[in-house]
Amino acid sequence: METINSLTAEDPQQLVNAIDSVWVAICAAIIFLMEGGFAILEAGFVRSKNAMSIIAKVMIDVVFGGIAFYVIGFGIAYGNSNGWFAFDTGITSEDLGLGLTVSNKLFWFIQMGFAVAAISIVSGAVAERMKLWPYALFVLLFTAFMYPLAANWVWNPNGWLAIRGFNDFAGSAAVHAMGGFAALAGAIVLGPRLGKYDENGESQAIPGHNLPLAAVGGFILWFGWFAFNPGSTLGAVGNWELIGTVATNTFLASAAGGISTMAYTYFRYGQIDITMMINGVLAGLVAITAGCNVVEADAAILIGFIAGILVDVAVLYVDKIKIDDPVGAIAVHGVNGLFGALAVGLFATEGGLFYGGGSDLFTTQLIGVSVIGAFSFVGTYLIMTILKKTIGIRIPEHEEVVGIDAVAFGVESYTTFE
Amino acid sequence: METINSLTAEDPQQLVNAIDSVWVAICAAIIFLMEGGFAILEAGFVRSKNAMSIIAKVMIDVVFGGIAFYVIGFGIAYGNSNGWFAFDTGITSEDLGLGLTVSNKLFWFIQMGFAVAAISIVSGAVAERMKLWPYALFVLLFTAFMYPLAANWVWNPNGWLAIRGFNDFAGSAAVHAMGGFAALAGAIVLGPRLGKYDENGESQAIPGHNLPLAAVGGFILWFGWFAFNPGSTLGAVGNWELIGTVATNTFLASAAGGISTMAYTYFRYGQIDITMMINGVLAGLVAITAGCNVVEADAAILIGFIAGILVDVAVLYVDKIKIDDPVGAIAVHGVNGLFGALAVGLFATEGGLFYGGGSDLFTTQLIGVSVIGAFSFVGTYLIMTILKKTIGIRIPEHEEVVGIDAVAFGVESYTTFE
Amino acid sequence: METINSLTAEDPQQLVNAIDSVWVAICAAIIFLMEGGFAILEAGFVRSKNAMSIIAKVMIDVVFGGIAFYVIGFGIAYGNSNGWFAFDTGITSEDLGLGLTVSNKLFWFIQMGFAVAAISIVSGAVAERMKLWPYALFVLLFTAFMYPLAANWVWNPNGWLAIRGFNDFAGSAAVHAMGGFAALAGAIVLGPRLGKYDENGESQAIPGHNLPLAAVGGFILWFGWFAFNPGSTLGAVGNWELIGTVATNTFLASAAGGISTMAYTYFRYGQIDITMMINGVLAGLVAITAGCNVVEADAAILIGFIAGILVDVAVLYVDKIKIDDPVGAIAVHGVNGLFGALAVGLFATEGGLFYGGGSDLFTTQLIGVSVIGAFSFVGTYLIMTILKKTIGIRIPEHEEVVGIDAVAFGVESYTTFE
Repeated sequence: METINSLTAEDPQQLVNAIDSVWVAICAAIIFLMEGGFAILEAGFVRSKNAMSIIAKVMIDVVFGGIAFYVIGFGIAYGNSNGWFAFDTGITSEDLGLGLTVSNKLFWFIQMGFAVAAISIVSGAVAERMKLWPYALFVLLFTAFMYPLAANWVWNPNGWLAIRGFNDFAGSAAVHAMGGFAALAGAIVLGPRLGKYDENGESQAIPGHNLPLAAVGGFILWFGWFAFNPGSTLGAVGNWELIGTVATNTFLASAAGGISTMAYTYFRYGQIDITMMINGVLAGLVAITAGCNVVEADAAILIGFIAGILVDVAVLYVDKIKIDDPVGAIAVHGVNGLFGALAVGLFATEGGLFYGGGSDLFTTQLIGVSVIGAFSFVGTYLIMTILKKTIGIRIPEHEEVVGIDAVAFGVESYTTFE
Repeated sequence: METINSLTAEDPQQLVNAIDSVWVAICAAIIFLMEGGFAILEAGFVRSKNAMSIIAKVMIDVVFGGIAFYVIGFGIAYGNSNGWFAFDTGITSEDLGLGLTVSNKLFWFIQMGFAVAAISIVSGAVAERMKLWPYALFVLLFTAFMYPLAANWVWNPNGWLAIRGFNDFAGSAAVHAMGGFAALAGAIVLGPRLGKYDENGESQAIPGHNLPLAAVGGFILWFGWFAFNPGSTLGAVGNWELIGTVATNTFLASAAGGISTMAYTYFRYGQIDITMMINGVLAGLVAITAGCNVVEADAAILIGFIAGILVDVAVLYVDKIKIDDPVGAIAVHGVNGLFGALAVGLFATEGGLFYGGGSDLFTTQLIGVSVIGAFSFVGTYLIMTILKKTIGIRIPEHEEVVGIDAVAFGVESYTTFE
Repeated sequence: METINSLTAEDPQQLVNAIDSVWVAICAAIIFLMEGGFAILEAGFVRSKNAMSIIAKVMIDVVFGGIAFYVIGFGIAYGNSNGWFAFDTGITSEDLGLGLTVSNKLFWFIQMGFAVAAISIVSGAVAERMKLWPYALFVLLFTAFMYPLAANWVWNPNGWLAIRGFNDFAGSAAVHAMGGFAALAGAIVLGPRLGKYDENGESQAIPGHNLPLAAVGGFILWFGWFAFNPGSTLGAVGNWELIGTVATNTFLASAAGGISTMAYTYFRYGQIDITMMINGVLAGLVAITAGCNVVEADAAILIGFIAGILVDVAVLYVDKIKIDDPVGAIAVHGVNGLFGALAVGLFATEGGLFYGGGSDLFTTQLIGVSVIGAFSFVGTYLIMTILKKTIGIRIPEHEEVVGIDAVAFGVESYTTFE
């Protein structure tokens, strides 16, 4: 325990530092909890025979990804950038040029949450069939180099997209499209799970084994977003009104995403798809993440509503072209990360196309998210292909049939209920 | 990401706004997580065949309720009141007369958490037998009109109960009695689940299918209460001592509620009822919610202790008169919301009957909670009856036997554990 | 709801009180949630037939422990100490000499979270075979007297260890070794579960029944640690840099613990032990808890890495000497609490042996944690033995075979999945 020096009460800058550190520290902790949300959302959506292995993969996202982002990634993202990358290491105590009022370490802690969130998106798309060690190696490369480059472009004060005025407040592009397009590449290179498409090419439903568990994960992610987006203010002093705007927009988009998914699945299938409703809420959250600071509440509702439909269409399309994404990560994070970044160009109250701002911002948003998505897709495709041709990325058929948990780890999620 | 203007450090009001916004934003996020708690508490307490449908209903509480409270409800609750209602729409930027130091949007965000908590109480009582769309319609009416009226009376500075000095700090009456008496009416109009009472009228136990899941939900709600009650300060500056008092009282009442339920069920049945112990804790929390700001710690313990017994007696009584409440919502929220509001009149250090304050405060509390409970009961009874006679509110018998999840949604919570 | 007095904005001390109260109140709430984490981690790691009884025990930790720490424990810990104990009762409003900027009640609330965390460590080690009421009695003794004595020595400004310069920032010794050595004594006195060691003395694996549930618990505990450790600053004003340091060190140690456990189990058994990976993360967290304020980031990684191996070795050793600890509490909290306290003596940047500080600090750390561990072990051993010889502590064999839940409580965690 520590006591404080009450003399600091007289120094306003100390108060600012303290307020903003409280804000960022708590938001960062809550953002961290999102990893628990990812873990059990994904575990619930896969078969029980692979549930612990997907939880292990999310733990690898955190432990490998966190260390890699500490040793290498952070310096690349937030060091002295030439516009495309920096090459500092560890956490410097120098001014990062971001106007931070929290310590660089605390800034690292919250940014680490963003980095591991991005990679956790990938873990879901490659579930039930990817080997552990190649996955761990990919996690290292992604969190040490790939994600930090995108963060550099978007959030480093010297990043080329930052300088162009790209608005990606909490990372529809830098986190979600980044993760979602890596998920797409990974799912393509790996190929579908055994039995996902039958001999006629018909898609077979492989339902999640524990939907209430998945729902708990969904609620934890939803909760976490109220730290992820508002916490991206990186400080409350001077931003207190913005915090309310961001929180409200974040909520409204999520609710609208849930409603539009309900409506879409009801009118299309005659019954609501509850599982998709969780994804609809998440889609609304992903889509508002870029623009929650610059759009009006009504626009947030519209963005969320569109996202909730986009995710349904995208899930079907991804399945139709025979890309097997067990948890819908591509549709939720990739497609809606893309849409969210573009939506800023349409709905931003200053510069948005629909608000009389012309097409400049939209063009910037289009360029930014396209480059990020393409970079993530191509980079992941290359890495995964190299891994595939060398150490192999796919588990043996026997393991896939019997289950990763039992064969590779010697455990079962659930033992006889005695 | 956003940087701050450090000049604001010199402006004390900016610091106050920032501190209070941090406080309210985080409390609001945690209060939001209570929806996840409601969802899985209720899911665990029902049969697995209906688990996803009750989670869907809680999601509807959030997505429909949140939007309705944005478009209509908030203006009715916090607009320019004539003492009984207001009729503004959306979130105005005008001063609401509450002395807020956070933005109206942030205030909306935390109040939305209260509104959806109130309706989520109802979802449990109507579980396993209510149709989805009529439920969604009721959610809209409740969060757009009914709950906002109670909030107007109690918390709008011009509300008739506010003016009378009604003390309902975080809503034993406005949230819990409101939700609990709606739950009562809903359960009555719907009637019991098939098989709940046999041909001789004997009550049959229908145990929850996943008690550890329910316990997780209970812990999440317990956690959330430490934002729900202390967060009702709506600001920390000037209230910092109060925050400690509220948190401590909230904890002590919850612990006492757990202990008295343990003792009661042990002495009455010869063994502790673990499931009821969760409800005993929640009962203590509900009962202290009105008075956590004005009672002493020892009174908080006593209030919680009584609540933990009341909930046991009430659960038995509700069952005896053949009202089927699958999760005990009426006993937890209705009966203890009522008791909690009255307890203020008895134990408030200023004005409480037992503290030499005479009967004025008690009378006000009695009037307030009675009007709120009666309003909620009658309103819900009418709406449910109209819905019953028109579009119908009860699922078909076949669906009730087989399960809502499979018949109405085509899903199963748990697939074969392969 | 409460409004604030905006005049306080002009009084810097009011701002300090408000900032620090926000920080402590939120950290305390999140620390409280760790009880939910303990409950379901332990429930998932035991057999389903005993899952609800272990959740009930954790609830008893909270409700009995919380009240005991209110009525008796807090005064012993933080009253006017003679170096070894104090004997005040309840929560005084007097200055505790800790330089607090939060109310004594709020300080009580966060300290209560530490007390119930310590006892919750014990609940896991005695799982599946201890009677409820003797356990509840032990909870009372532990939280009213035993834990408060350790807290007095370490954190009371007049405590003999505090005066010696013992550094146990958030309680590797006072909370984790305290709980872990009590767990050791409890497990010894109780003896192993039926069937844990066969007639040849061979240990039989008794796998947890719901590993995803345990993983959820692990993530909740992980999350809680980001309040437990940083929150031990007890205030943000003047400590804002420290908060970042503590959070970063806490994360890095946990990640390193997870990685080293992965590596250790992989190289030793040929496959990763996912369950142990959760314990490896927790071991890293326990070990960094004492020194997170005084070690560098690289040292935090090393401490976590060692902890992640220690926990594996310790789990095997505890099992080898036929002490049955169903959840690994002794290895996680006892062994790594001990190690964490000693690590301060090695790695502290000021005074650490490896940093040129000589052996004084190490000696102090060694004395402190040894005394605490021995005190907890001996005290628990005596209490448990007395309870064993009087009212009995072990459930009947029939109950152990059939399950505590069904026999003692008449419930089942999971009913037929209909």
